[in-house]
Amino acid sequence: MSAEGTLVEIPREQCLQLLRASFVGRVAVAVPGSAPLVVPVNFVVDGEIVVFRSDEGSKIDALRVGPISFQADFVDPVHRTGWSVLVQGVAYEATPWEVEHIGLESWVSGAKAHWVRIVPATITGRRINPAESAVDLRGYL
Amino acid sequence: MSAEGTLVEIPREQCLQLLRASFVGRVAVAVPGSAPLVVPVNFVVDGEIVVFRSDEGSKIDALRVGPISFQADFVDPVHRTGWSVLVQGVAYEATPWEVEHIGLESWVSGAKAHWVRIVPATITGRRINPAESAVDLRGYL
Repeated sequence: MSAEGTLVEIPREQCLQLLRASFVGRVAVAVPGSAPLVVPVNFVVDGEIVVFRSDEGSKIDALRVGPISFQADFVDPVHRTGWSVLVQGVAYEATPWEVEHIGLESWVSGAKAHWVRIVPATITGRRINPAESAVDLRGYL
Repeated sequence: MSAEGTLVEIPREQCLQLLRASFVGRVAVAVPGSAPLVVPVNFVVDGEIVVFRSDEGSKIDALRVGPISFQADFVDPVHRTGWSVLVQGVAYEATPWEVEHIGLESWVSGAKAHWVRIVPATITGRRINPAESAVDLRGYL
């Protein structure tokens, strides 16, 4: 398969649809003087807000000081296609009444005392449209 | 399923094994005054060096100015388990003779003129060991 696809932008509303159909993404926060910290989290989308749980640690410390990114993707290695959505915004620790309607269980035992909400400033996405069998595959994503 | 697992550290050598068995990860670079940029890339591991291809753009610009992260993970939503490996280091643009032995095809058409090598400063990983059926699942990862 020669399989060089083309990269196309995903409109914002479709980015949100893809996020709503996903359950795991990655939080990336800048760490002054170091490389960004990137940690997978399970999450839900509440309106346009990304919500996840966190325990104490460098992740919650870092998001207090600056903008944050949240990324989710899907990759199909056989057809060499996939998509990626990047939410860039500001995170804050949610109050209990902001999250009481959200059923988000942690996969890991422990405190996970903090609920974090990311308010998006930008939501961008890109998809690889496969070079071959494009007609068959376009419906997948 | 109650399914609250425990989070365990993955030794460095096992992190490298997991990376060598993966083909897609995410590059995260700090962007001054903004949230980190996070972009999926297909990659190979050359010794302990992560190698990927990039075209011109903010990704290649950003990696010239500071430390970079590379993250890969695997998630099993049914058993609520998975792993994540984070490479933090310094990236540089590879010379042709550093990469001529590497067969890494781009999935996207276009220039992709730059080969990037990430020299790891730290390689860390964490795995969720599932709470139930632990004996059956431990062999998977």
